[in-house]
Amino acid sequence: MSAWERWFAEQREERERAGLQRALRPRARDEHLIDLAGNDYLGLSAHPEVRRAAAGAALGWGAGAGASRLVTGTTELHAELERELAEFTGQRAALVLSTGYHANLSAVTALAGKDALIVSDAHVHASLIDAARLSRASIEVVGHNDVSAVRAALADTDRRAIVLAESVFSVLGDAAPLAELAAVCAEHDALLLVDEAHGLGVLGPGGRGLVHALGLAGHPNVVVTATLSKALGAMGGAVLGSPALIDHLTNRARPFIFDTALAPAAVAGAQAALRQLRAAPELPGEIHRRAARLADRLVVPRSAGAVLSVPMPSPGVALAAQAKALAEGVRVGCFRPPSVPDGVSRLRITAQAGLDAPSWNRAAEVLARIIDEHRSEQ
Amino acid sequence: MSAWERWFAEQREERERAGLQRALRPRARDEHLIDLAGNDYLGLSAHPEVRRAAAGAALGWGAGAGASRLVTGTTELHAELERELAEFTGQRAALVLSTGYHANLSAVTALAGKDALIVSDAHVHASLIDAARLSRASIEVVGHNDVSAVRAALADTDRRAIVLAESVFSVLGDAAPLAELAAVCAEHDALLLVDEAHGLGVLGPGGRGLVHALGLAGHPNVVVTATLSKALGAMGGAVLGSPALIDHLTNRARPFIFDTALAPAAVAGAQAALRQLRAAPELPGEIHRRAARLADRLVVPRSAGAVLSVPMPSPGVALAAQAKALAEGVRVGCFRPPSVPDGVSRLRITAQAGLDAPSWNRAAEVLARIIDEHRSEQ
Ligand SMILES: Cc1ncc(COP(=O)(O)O)c(C=O)c1O
Ligand SMILES: Cc1ncc(COP(=O)(O)O)c(C=O)c1O
Repeated sequence: MSAWERWFAEQREERERAGLQRALRPRARDEHLIDLAGNDYLGLSAHPEVRRAAAGAALGWGAGAGASRLVTGTTELHAELERELAEFTGQRAALVLSTGYHANLSAVTALAGKDALIVSDAHVHASLIDAARLSRASIEVVGHNDVSAVRAALADTDRRAIVLAESVFSVLGDAAPLAELAAVCAEHDALLLVDEAHGLGVLGPGGRGLVHALGLAGHPNVVVTATLSKALGAMGGAVLGSPALIDHLTNRARPFIFDTALAPAAVAGAQAALRQLRAAPELPGEIHRRAARLADRLVVPRSAGAVLSVPMPSPGVALAAQAKALAEGVRVGCFRPPSVPDGVSRLRITAQAGLDAPSWNRAAEVLARIIDEHRSEQ
Repeated sequence: MSAWERWFAEQREERERAGLQRALRPRARDEHLIDLAGNDYLGLSAHPEVRRAAAGAALGWGAGAGASRLVTGTTELHAELERELAEFTGQRAALVLSTGYHANLSAVTALAGKDALIVSDAHVHASLIDAARLSRASIEVVGHNDVSAVRAALADTDRRAIVLAESVFSVLGDAAPLAELAAVCAEHDALLLVDEAHGLGVLGPGGRGLVHALGLAGHPNVVVTATLSKALGAMGGAVLGSPALIDHLTNRARPFIFDTALAPAAVAGAQAALRQLRAAPELPGEIHRRAARLADRLVVPRSAGAVLSVPMPSPGVALAAQAKALAEGVRVGCFRPPSVPDGVSRLRITAQAGLDAPSWNRAAEVLARIIDEHRSEQ
């Protein structure tokens, strides 16, 4: 056994002892499960128009974009989607990237360098944490949603500063105090980067996001990142802001410049989903009604968006509850360390507006029963 | 003007003064250009079977995967592609990721930590440089293809060590001395990570890559990363190696765990391309014949793969030559700082096996003439 094989084996044993070993389970196309684990909150990935648009782009443009955006990877489809995303979110410009992860890496590293200070909420997503590390800026992690801590950090520095937050946090499902954060940033010439991964298509009138709902779109101190892979049902990421910001990223963001452009099918899928959303601005409302009813029934805090977080007594119990739900035909997520910001294992249940009412109601009943049985276990 | 707007403007002025300002130019579906800029070396992105497979997956599975791989994003399509990629490259296991960039970030950060040493070839791709930075390992950059420098770096350390190289380097198109590097790594219990982004589908019998051609597939000290976005004509990335390596990445690689799975259309497109390649192992040969003839004609070193690199006297002259070729219907790449490892601006021309012979020959003539006219200019 080589040294590396030994190392892999030791690491795996450690995970197994801690109950943290994970494996991939491929799903079949015809599985008959009610899925409350995914982030396709509006069911748009499976919408006939969205599927058709994605398929049409693959047929018309080919399976891939063939090169990076600055070489020949930018098609008219990409440019159209950028215009429509900007318009939808009330921004002046947009840049489409291959993943939401790339969007965060690109925005943060192109804005912050060694000479900058990043002030990061303690609960931000892995992609923002990695982005901050990669930027080589000084990093100050502040308590979750602690505006005074952000103010103190900004008051204390002469550096170019960037504040990181999510409009709806991905694990706990709560919202950030964006208006207050934007005001503090404006006072100190700092930039507030808001990741709307779980806000776009979910929050605000018509699903235009929390930044738009709060009148912060176009605010000179606010930059937005988003993904095309959640409520928009496709794949990819975006950065939204001023034309000068987008020009800066186009020229400076390595994870944008040195990456093959998003495939035409994903671009067209996201565009069709966006058009569905524009045509039916009432769609996101059902997410909130379902999320609120289920939160009340499970006696957990209501979510700002679609994500309900149900703390469980241990990783093992969380897994057992998840398995039981699956056996009864309902899939939910299970987050254990290191995927949780506070070390508490939990079920992660997403309200799905795309499900028919009987399926949703059955799933809610199954979950309420199983969670009641398990949450007091040790 | 806010402080940030001023900063963006200053940065842009600096780029403009240096002749380095870049902008996106969307291409139309029906443009009549001969494209020698992209990395779709076999033309498989546009192959009818590949387009149809991508479209069929979008129709059958939806526009997106809906969640990360460990939640519900892994479909049977992903698992099938992983099996086929592993088999094709002679490896025991594979992991599919959203981009080649994610593949490099994932492999390097999950293998190297603060306690590790990364020995990196001076010419590796931005994604490997970013991956090394993100890992927080100590980094030693060694001269391009300098095996003795790698040996010295490894002899000099007790740390877990990872050596980074590309099978065909992306800008200069030369190959790495992989057999020697693997031997040195085996001697020192180090891991050699080979990025086959420009090798898969291009090098070795049937396009199985340089690692396979050299008998290094399955070598306990060799790990391979690749992209699905170049010769495979789709989008996405992959890591190839032992099952223990893949299990380790599945549990530890943050840019894998916290990212939505690759969209079904891209998975199916890459799979169909791979099947085309299996059915026609002679396909890559045409890349090499065309690349060699064009290299001789342009009096530049022959490429190990598809990438011809033509040094130009300045960024401005490189741009002028590129524009002239475009005006004559031929698109080539133009690499200027900071996208070149050695600071020399160049045209980057890729041999395209998918083009019909008259188009290829016409493009070669146009380029030979324009390059002769411009390369001696100041
Ligand atoms: C808050 C947040 N930001 C970014 C991402 C990354 O987006 P993507 O999956 O499109 O890479 C995710 C989830 O995956 C997320 O939850
Ligand atoms: C050597 C190399 N590695 C990795 C990548 C990244 O792959 P992708 O474009 O699939 O993200 C590229 C090019 O984009 C590359 O040239």
